[in-house]
Amino acid sequence: MKTIVLGGDGFCGWPTSLHLSKNGHEVIIVDNLSRRNIDNELEAGSLTPIAPMGQRLAAWKEVTGKEIAFRNIDVAQDYAALLELLQTEKPDAVVHFAEQRAAPYSMKSSWHKRYTVDNNVNATNNLLAAIVESGQDIHLVHLGTMGVYGYGTAGMKIPEGYLDVEVTTDEGERVQQKILYPTNPGSIYHMTKTLDQLLFAYYAKNDDMRITDLHQGIVWGTNTPETKLDERLINRFDYDGDYGTVLNRFLMQAAVDHPLTVHGTGGQTRAFIHITDTVKCVELALANPPQRGDKVKILNQMTETHRVRDLAELIARLSGAEVAYVTNPRREDAENDLHVRNDLFLDLGLEPTTLEAGLLSEVTDVARRYRDRADLSKVPARSTWTRAQKPGVPDQVRKAEPV
Amino acid sequence: MKTIVLGGDGFCGWPTSLHLSKNGHEVIIVDNLSRRNIDNELEAGSLTPIAPMGQRLAAWKEVTGKEIAFRNIDVAQDYAALLELLQTEKPDAVVHFAEQRAAPYSMKSSWHKRYTVDNNVNATNNLLAAIVESGQDIHLVHLGTMGVYGYGTAGMKIPEGYLDVEVTTDEGERVQQKILYPTNPGSIYHMTKTLDQLLFAYYAKNDDMRITDLHQGIVWGTNTPETKLDERLINRFDYDGDYGTVLNRFLMQAAVDHPLTVHGTGGQTRAFIHITDTVKCVELALANPPQRGDKVKILNQMTETHRVRDLAELIARLSGAEVAYVTNPRREDAENDLHVRNDLFLDLGLEPTTLEAGLLSEVTDVARRYRDRADLSKVPARSTWTRAQKPGVPDQVRKAEPV
Repeated sequence: MKTIVLGGDGFCGWPTSLHLSKNGHEVIIVDNLSRRNIDNELEAGSLTPIAPMGQRLAAWKEVTGKEIAFRNIDVAQDYAALLELLQTEKPDAVVHFAEQRAAPYSMKSSWHKRYTVDNNVNATNNLLAAIVESGQDIHLVHLGTMGVYGYGTAGMKIPEGYLDVEVTTDEGERVQQKILYPTNPGSIYHMTKTLDQLLFAYYAKNDDMRITDLHQGIVWGTNTPETKLDERLINRFDYDGDYGTVLNRFLMQAAVDHPLTVHGTGGQTRAFIHITDTVKCVELALANPPQRGDKVKILNQMTETHRVRDLAELIARLSGAEVAYVTNPRREDAENDLHVRNDLFLDLGLEPTTLEAGLLSEVTDVARRYRDRADLSKVPARSTWTRAQKPGVPDQVRKAEPV
Repeated sequence: MKTIVLGGDGFCGWPTSLHLSKNGHEVIIVDNLSRRNIDNELEAGSLTPIAPMGQRLAAWKEVTGKEIAFRNIDVAQDYAALLELLQTEKPDAVVHFAEQRAAPYSMKSSWHKRYTVDNNVNATNNLLAAIVESGQDIHLVHLGTMGVYGYGTAGMKIPEGYLDVEVTTDEGERVQQKILYPTNPGSIYHMTKTLDQLLFAYYAKNDDMRITDLHQGIVWGTNTPETKLDERLINRFDYDGDYGTVLNRFLMQAAVDHPLTVHGTGGQTRAFIHITDTVKCVELALANPPQRGDKVKILNQMTETHRVRDLAELIARLSGAEVAYVTNPRREDAENDLHVRNDLFLDLGLEPTTLEAGLLSEVTDVARRYRDRADLSKVPARSTWTRAQKPGVPDQVRKAEPV
């Protein structure tokens, strides 16, 4: 099976590419290296020393004997190159990770809002238009986000993509309908994934395209069995206030003796998944495509939910770190419950990797090993959702900063 | 009241700008003249001879003594100029017509799909981001489309934007929810207006922006009291297969002895509004803004519904024209019913201009007057929704065409 991975240099795309390659896919990575370039912009790189793509692929070949091809294409901008790639390579599937994926980054300024919308929407629409123009029956697998649903419900478990509702007709008759779950995104980034959903629904309907959308929770962990094979294969680890995800950030903060920065009351409940499960889920999605003419197949790619302050207190207990309850830079509900269905992946055989001390300490070990590479000034979240919010900087850190 | 009209050179934007100017608004038109440039691309211009913007505005001043300013800005591309305009002019409101608005044009090719998505989404998001960055409390009024709803319902009248539904919780409790009406767009163009809706919902929530979205039916008619004041003020009239709207196309076809091209069975039921009501509705929307913190105010801007074949048969009866039932170039249901609420505009005092012979003959008169300007080869709709659809060309026209 030949699979193109758009965004195959990123935090999820890289380990997914290796996992698919190991399990027999012929993999072509497409990436414009935008994530590395954003490191330059933010002056905050991966805590782990990630190798250049050429070294990564050479190491993979050396260690496993398998080849992965690489093409540097900006799929949001260079439609001609993308189309030509589909026409030449005739892939069975395309996995689409090629989007700006950080909520705080998307809220930093007008420029960042506009870049995120322009990049993400055009990347998706270019891919869809190119698949139609190619005339090929290519299965598209896209990384969505749990954040499309929003984090409040009317008291039911969040279903997988589609919600059963009843409407009342003018004659008073009650009619059942299955609708795309009404979205309530919490940032410009999350909103772009709600736009993606409507693009997918349209192309599935008009062009009978086979599309799978994976609504993923917050990813934690760093390495997978494949990225551990050689240090040149190491995955990226983001610890900064824009790209670092909450659980990994707490573990890194514990490792470098920084207070664990909990936004607001920490009452936010979120969905989580370990990076080793991410790569397995994508493989399962590729092996179980929808049929032509089906609506978009939507799966919730998460394995458990946790309240943010519970995670902080757990890690504080394990590590002795201090918890700092800081101003919430986001405009969001202080507290929410979250119950999510994930039966579709469980039915496909996923055995969830859940939160346990062993896996937590693995992340802490990675963080400790590379702690000298960290710039602690990048740890607090400083991107605010509106002018009314304030950066999430602990008092002791604020006092130590130059005015 | 100072009002900026984005897209003020177009079919709806131009008469709206004049109507607002006449009724006391200080109007600034922003347009990149893209519609005139698309005339060049399609080799199909307005049936009516529209004057260049400079002549239009000079005539308006000559006839009424009122000044309308004009700025040539591509709002989808030139964010800096748009922001600077808001900061300098400090408008009370912005009316946003600056989108590619033809469904068939949006389906002509990959390029046209990509242009429509890129242009429409970035125009809207640039405007939203610029209003936030300006820090001003500007009311945004946007021209949406009835097509966001799709043309099938579960048997109830289409509400204005929001649908009441019931969901059942895990405990079996029934809970009422008011949700954005689930969308079902029929073309890439219509889909972009469903993307706009999600952008608006997000900025209304995160930034307390005051936004009104007008879901307009198919516009018919040509001139308004203002555009009739001087021939240099004449409105555009599109008769070609890409930009011509169905009722105006039938009237023009009757005027030039072309068969009335009905797609498929003509069983499609659509919503309609006369151009004089369009401009009144926008004025009413500007005078009745939502409050800060309100969700997006959505109004259905239409006054009646008709089945397409009924319109064709009516015009055939009045004019003696022949009706040609041709292949439908669109992928859509052959037949649909449509019932739509429009109480909000009626409550604001709109007195609908409905279909009547006098108004129909006014359009026919305009078409007859300028019939020598028509290129009849541009009349059939040739843009097909997929490779499976065929152009809507009547047999007698097809036979006369060069192979």
